[in-house]
Amino acid sequence: MTKHLLSSGDLSLEDINNIFDTAGRFHGRGRFLKGRTVVNLFYEPSTRTRTSFELAAKRLGADVVNFDVSTSSVEKGEDLRDTVTTLESLGADVLIVRHPNRGVPQQVTGWVDCSVINAGDGTREHPTQALLDLYTIREHFGKLAGLRVGIVGDVHHSRVANSLYFALAKVGAESILIGPRKLVSSRPGPYISYDLESNLPELDVCYMLRLQTERRQYITTDYTRHELKEYGKKFGLTKERAAMLPDHAIIMHPGPMNRGVEIDSDVADSPRSVIRDQVSNGVAVRAAVLSWL
Amino acid sequence: MTKHLLSSGDLSLEDINNIFDTAGRFHGRGRFLKGRTVVNLFYEPSTRTRTSFELAAKRLGADVVNFDVSTSSVEKGEDLRDTVTTLESLGADVLIVRHPNRGVPQQVTGWVDCSVINAGDGTREHPTQALLDLYTIREHFGKLAGLRVGIVGDVHHSRVANSLYFALAKVGAESILIGPRKLVSSRPGPYISYDLESNLPELDVCYMLRLQTERRQYITTDYTRHELKEYGKKFGLTKERAAMLPDHAIIMHPGPMNRGVEIDSDVADSPRSVIRDQVSNGVAVRAAVLSWL
Amino acid sequence: MTKHLLSSGDLSLEDINNIFDTAGRFHGRGRFLKGRTVVNLFYEPSTRTRTSFELAAKRLGADVVNFDVSTSSVEKGEDLRDTVTTLESLGADVLIVRHPNRGVPQQVTGWVDCSVINAGDGTREHPTQALLDLYTIREHFGKLAGLRVGIVGDVHHSRVANSLYFALAKVGAESILIGPRKLVSSRPGPYISYDLESNLPELDVCYMLRLQTERRQYITTDYTRHELKEYGKKFGLTKERAAMLPDHAIIMHPGPMNRGVEIDSDVADSPRSVIRDQVSNGVAVRAAVLSWL
Repeated sequence: MTKHLLSSGDLSLEDINNIFDTAGRFHGRGRFLKGRTVVNLFYEPSTRTRTSFELAAKRLGADVVNFDVSTSSVEKGEDLRDTVTTLESLGADVLIVRHPNRGVPQQVTGWVDCSVINAGDGTREHPTQALLDLYTIREHFGKLAGLRVGIVGDVHHSRVANSLYFALAKVGAESILIGPRKLVSSRPGPYISYDLESNLPELDVCYMLRLQTERRQYITTDYTRHELKEYGKKFGLTKERAAMLPDHAIIMHPGPMNRGVEIDSDVADSPRSVIRDQVSNGVAVRAAVLSWL
Repeated sequence: MTKHLLSSGDLSLEDINNIFDTAGRFHGRGRFLKGRTVVNLFYEPSTRTRTSFELAAKRLGADVVNFDVSTSSVEKGEDLRDTVTTLESLGADVLIVRHPNRGVPQQVTGWVDCSVINAGDGTREHPTQALLDLYTIREHFGKLAGLRVGIVGDVHHSRVANSLYFALAKVGAESILIGPRKLVSSRPGPYISYDLESNLPELDVCYMLRLQTERRQYITTDYTRHELKEYGKKFGLTKERAAMLPDHAIIMHPGPMNRGVEIDSDVADSPRSVIRDQVSNGVAVRAAVLSWL
Repeated sequence: MTKHLLSSGDLSLEDINNIFDTAGRFHGRGRFLKGRTVVNLFYEPSTRTRTSFELAAKRLGADVVNFDVSTSSVEKGEDLRDTVTTLESLGADVLIVRHPNRGVPQQVTGWVDCSVINAGDGTREHPTQALLDLYTIREHFGKLAGLRVGIVGDVHHSRVANSLYFALAKVGAESILIGPRKLVSSRPGPYISYDLESNLPELDVCYMLRLQTERRQYITTDYTRHELKEYGKKFGLTKERAAMLPDHAIIMHPGPMNRGVEIDSDVADSPRSVIRDQVSNGVAVRAAVLSWL
């Protein structure tokens, strides 16, 4: 029996289909977690993910505790291990962990007996995001196998790209990583391109990544206004570039968006953008993951 | 069908009576919002209002999410529009919005399909405060029409004064705005006075406003201790001044109070003060507003 | 009828037994507080205590509001009295109060009619911690009377030590306060020792206190690395010292631990440590206290 969700690479095709069937069947509502306790342990700020898990858990009847790191004993210098074992002793059945360091959720599984869900660990993985992305693609196309997905932009710093890449491979879809040399070169996989426009006509899904200015490691200063403009010029999804996509193609983004940098506002809000579907499917898919665990 | 509550000026007399009947009938309890999601989106600190809405929504069986701006993706630079559309996509049925800028809740209604309640937008409006104030007055006097209400103090910066003024006009009560020239001159309405004492004997309700030191725009520095003392000398409700009110008159304040500035402690805690009734009626009235929407 | 829990010294032996029976019987679950409102009012950071009360109250069916001081009107300068009377007017049935100043929960009972639970007031008391500690000891030994409990370390700054000392006296257990002269001399009680090792062979329970670096008043600077090492050398519970305890003795700590200072990691995680039991019993005992009030 599966207990944790740490990486989308750990999921079998059957697991993925099970989760999607559950998400579709009960639309994220039920009493499966009545009397259970779900703890959101977030060491990084989040809108979508924390609230999405909170609502998913509440709709399943769970007691939800948001563990706010800034007001917690972490300030008294308690170490991570003591924090998570304390939360388990308090009765947590599921720990949802986001942390700036890679591998922390994996580490946590060594300390506790309850279930652990990785809600983002540094630049490594964010598997529920990949699941909701795949669910949204399947909802639109009725299938996943054989589709061609362009993952565009700051691949290097993106845990979303990582998890998505693994999950797409599992379901038989093809991914191509597209971005500036510095931001894609360190990633695995045979399909890499440094040019956006030439790839657009071949894509079924154009998945724009957030330029993660807060994680930028290879340059010590913040992006300058000039650099952002240069980035947008080459890899931003403008109206003109969106028009190069096939008519049936859809546009995705994990949010939060840097409008005017990696994606233009009229593209983000256009009919072929399924960005808002991603958000609403997130609650159903996360509820399905919680039930499945 | 009404969908939003943005200004007390939008409410008809019938709307107001409906809300009050609902508030009185079920005392803020019921399962009207079972399965619905209410989001508190507060861009300014708040005790009463946020907790009051939270309790009102919980007592109606809703799932409540407090969207804490400081720990959210807003820190990653997400814009307001994306934040609210995300919250709607996550399943929000009602957004309760407080923001330092005037007109933001109105703007939000243009972006989402769910209901929006204005919980305070800059110095503009705070309609549920006006509703609970009127409810408290009606509870005490058994009527509203014909009463004379003095709104005293920092009228210029007060969204409470604004919403109250509009609502009192709707129900046929008379308001008089009283305060230092600088703090009342920019407000509309025929009844304005720069002298407190001469008006006290005529009032049924003496509504003291908070001196909003945090919104003071016309002077660049904080109020000095001397200025606060001067303000209190002329417009503070002291024991002596409270004695000039008719015997049947009541004293109100929207909180939080600057005790010793606009109101003296023994007046705030005296039997004719209904300040605590205002707070407890707030939960019932807000629950009624949520049901009514 | 008892209404507040401010000090473990206020509890009769019968009260303590009632609470323990309740905690044992329903394991912190039930609908005793359905429709009631419990407010966590914490002016100091906390992991265990706040979450423990939150879960206890939720498991009893209460609506729980966490009053986050940093985002509240307290920032607008509202005074403590107005904050608590507002919370009561909003419908709070129980206020759980933590505050850095001694005596604040007692003060609060003078302002409100609802129940008040002291969740820690400065260095004075933390009675529910003492109750869960006693419950954990009784769970292990089947009794409390006649046991010998060493309370070791920073007794001077510890509200836990204080509450525990009073409660142990109530149930007929013996306590001995052990620590450096500066950190125990100001405490009452006949049994005081400045030497740890000589006492270890006589203890049934070795209760290690947190070195409260954040409350240190007698020296103006933080503990230096050297001082921490010196403290650990004399009063830290190392593996070697733990071996001096009788075979049946147990090891306790209220958390959060300074691992490597007052307690070594392999001792904290050893089979005779019941530190995690303390945390999980905390939820059941606090639920029992909430029901009992």
